[in-house]
Amino acid sequence: MITGMGETGARPAMGVLSGAILAVGTELLGSDKLDTNSLALTACLERFGVVLREKRVAADDEAGIAEALRELAGRVDLVLVTGGLGPTRDDCTRGAAATAFERAVRMDQGLIEDLERRFAAFGRDMPEVNRRQAEVLEGAQVLANARGTAPGQRLDAERATVFLLPGVPREVQGMIESHLEPWLAARTDSARDGMARRVMKVACLAESAVEERLGEFYRRWGRDTLGILARPGDVRLELRLRGAARRQLQAMDADLRAGLGDAIYGEGAEITLEKVVIDGLRARGLKLAVAESCTGGLLAARLTSVPGASAAFLGGVISYDNALKQALLGVSPAQMATHGAVSEPVARTMAQAARGLGADFGIGITGIAGPTGATPEKPVGTVHLALVGRGADRSSPEVSAMVHRCVRFPGDREMVRQQACQLALDLLRRALAVAAQPAAVSDRGEAG
Amino acid sequence: MITGMGETGARPAMGVLSGAILAVGTELLGSDKLDTNSLALTACLERFGVVLREKRVAADDEAGIAEALRELAGRVDLVLVTGGLGPTRDDCTRGAAATAFERAVRMDQGLIEDLERRFAAFGRDMPEVNRRQAEVLEGAQVLANARGTAPGQRLDAERATVFLLPGVPREVQGMIESHLEPWLAARTDSARDGMARRVMKVACLAESAVEERLGEFYRRWGRDTLGILARPGDVRLELRLRGAARRQLQAMDADLRAGLGDAIYGEGAEITLEKVVIDGLRARGLKLAVAESCTGGLLAARLTSVPGASAAFLGGVISYDNALKQALLGVSPAQMATHGAVSEPVARTMAQAARGLGADFGIGITGIAGPTGATPEKPVGTVHLALVGRGADRSSPEVSAMVHRCVRFPGDREMVRQQACQLALDLLRRALAVAAQPAAVSDRGEAG
Repeated sequence: MITGMGETGARPAMGVLSGAILAVGTELLGSDKLDTNSLALTACLERFGVVLREKRVAADDEAGIAEALRELAGRVDLVLVTGGLGPTRDDCTRGAAATAFERAVRMDQGLIEDLERRFAAFGRDMPEVNRRQAEVLEGAQVLANARGTAPGQRLDAERATVFLLPGVPREVQGMIESHLEPWLAARTDSARDGMARRVMKVACLAESAVEERLGEFYRRWGRDTLGILARPGDVRLELRLRGAARRQLQAMDADLRAGLGDAIYGEGAEITLEKVVIDGLRARGLKLAVAESCTGGLLAARLTSVPGASAAFLGGVISYDNALKQALLGVSPAQMATHGAVSEPVARTMAQAARGLGADFGIGITGIAGPTGATPEKPVGTVHLALVGRGADRSSPEVSAMVHRCVRFPGDREMVRQQACQLALDLLRRALAVAAQPAAVSDRGEAG
Repeated sequence: MITGMGETGARPAMGVLSGAILAVGTELLGSDKLDTNSLALTACLERFGVVLREKRVAADDEAGIAEALRELAGRVDLVLVTGGLGPTRDDCTRGAAATAFERAVRMDQGLIEDLERRFAAFGRDMPEVNRRQAEVLEGAQVLANARGTAPGQRLDAERATVFLLPGVPREVQGMIESHLEPWLAARTDSARDGMARRVMKVACLAESAVEERLGEFYRRWGRDTLGILARPGDVRLELRLRGAARRQLQAMDADLRAGLGDAIYGEGAEITLEKVVIDGLRARGLKLAVAESCTGGLLAARLTSVPGASAAFLGGVISYDNALKQALLGVSPAQMATHGAVSEPVARTMAQAARGLGADFGIGITGIAGPTGATPEKPVGTVHLALVGRGADRSSPEVSAMVHRCVRFPGDREMVRQQACQLALDLLRRALAVAAQPAAVSDRGEAG
């Protein structure tokens, strides 16, 4: 409980609040399920500057939950509990809270009527067992749940304010928006204490290479404010600044950009390289087609996962079998015999043939994803990529520019395939950036 | 601590052990990271019948960790701690354990030498700060870590045996195999208490349809032993039986199969529908090619994610743009004008053209994945699928059998695409099952 507050009264925060999250549910203690509600709750706490001290998962066991509630409510300012508010005997969060905080429980007639209406809307009578969901703890505020039958409750106990929330992720999200955020907004100074984040995405640099380029950033700002999450060919950087430190965001952002330059392909947690490429093509009215061998459709699948991709992506050929490289892409038997299917000439021919489908840009990818197919000269991970497309010179768009890369990617089959797609997309992103600038200037010149 | 045991002594289990997991690390309390080590640890506990009572995540704060350790060691038989064993000041698990259990700490000369050797192997001197990793608690057993610099420790404290383990997932996995499993094997009766699981996968049935078919199973066995996890077009069923109840596994398995029949496409957590299809094609020496529109390469990407796919999958065409349907697949302008790109005739022509690339089976998929492109007659989610291939009659393999489906899939773009791929794969799985049986019989007859 925030000292000196009535349960419904708002008052200015007395400092940064501390929080804990308790997820209730035996199924969350199995070997194949994690409590993911805590991520949405944590994001909300971060926005309002609440410092999360602990997360717990407890089984559907009333005594155990009661003990956890007592411990946490004695230790932090805000306890967020998810799950265990359903109608069945398993659901014992209400009972555990009543035991932990020595509260009586009353039946709330209004809630019973709400529940009955909810069932009636689906043409059903309310099962008797659902009456349990109308049990309200003495002194607790009922929190309406627009997305399910389990209402939440909020009560002050020990030193904490305790939120009892449902366990279904959609319902938790709704309760965050309708109850937790407004409550936090009234009690914290998010401008002073809240956390600001900025996410940047980097393509085709290993984590160690990113770190190396950030020497100056680290010297100036230290290592604590920057989170790095690396996936094959894709590194996510996140600046996190709390309270007054947020004033430094622009300067830190500038230092990151100084170190990484155009390796940064986008900003924001939701951005993907395929979206940047599709958007870049669309903005310029350009079309792409692909010819994939070792990536076997993965590049096309990533491109077409972007809504609206059809405005920029024509499709292409998956020439997984060498016969299709010849039948559909014009790779000659001589090329195959002389250089092999995984070679620069074949990649170039594939890219040209893809472009020949009516596109401005064509991509060809051929390689050895493994685990089999390797030779001493061409180990697993060897990939040839070619990109052909319009060059920087818009005055003669038919003069095509060709880029070729031969790379040996580390990792297993899936990592090799992902990295190959990533590099293909990044080559095109860079080609678009170069191709566009003079064109834009020249277009404007003509119009003016 | 397991009562009456010396620290290194083995003895028969006195009953089912209880366990708790504590993950240490402030980064695990952010809004974008979960403690996934606990899943591997839980899987190990389940195998030996240890009942997990609680999971916790604590910040890098010595006093907080010490308090959690004391609480947990007083509550359960086995406490597994991950993280906080690194060399930096953040890493305070060792200190917290010393405080919690009032143990002195000694420097282990052997460990220091091990660490120095490890650094020397990379041509580096050991930084002074790494000496901290040689601190060993009084009465603790050192647990060698073959995959990193942080050794683990095992000690008996309060009523529990406490394992201090590193936080890097690869290292945790190594420690499970080299230390936790042998320790549990010596102290539990996994045949008596261990958990047995059986996973089955079902294609192209909604969760509710699966439930409906399991009425008889539920009447006989109840709902507690069967876990259901539903993804678009793919439902995973898991039987979990502990101790003596495992004798019922065969009978339960049979009841599941009676209810679901050939909707079950495979067994085991790792099986995928694409693997079943590739294996089925390979076993019969048959080849597949595809023509994809709305799935945009996703079907091919899934097929080629299976190692060895090249023995059964030729590739195909991604005719995302309608011009490519005509140029590469022989869809006629008249077909397009009369029926539209999303239609049965176009799907059939696509499948035929795919088969014409030299395959035994061809698949054609055309549809509206959304969010745009819908019409009143063809809402988002409308997909036409066609499968053409050799029929059941092996004596005239050129008589091709054609299957067509028009489905309206629920959900967003990604869900529609995934479900369309799932149905295409399932149609082929069923065609292979039918095609193969008479052939196998007839082959045997000829040989005999």
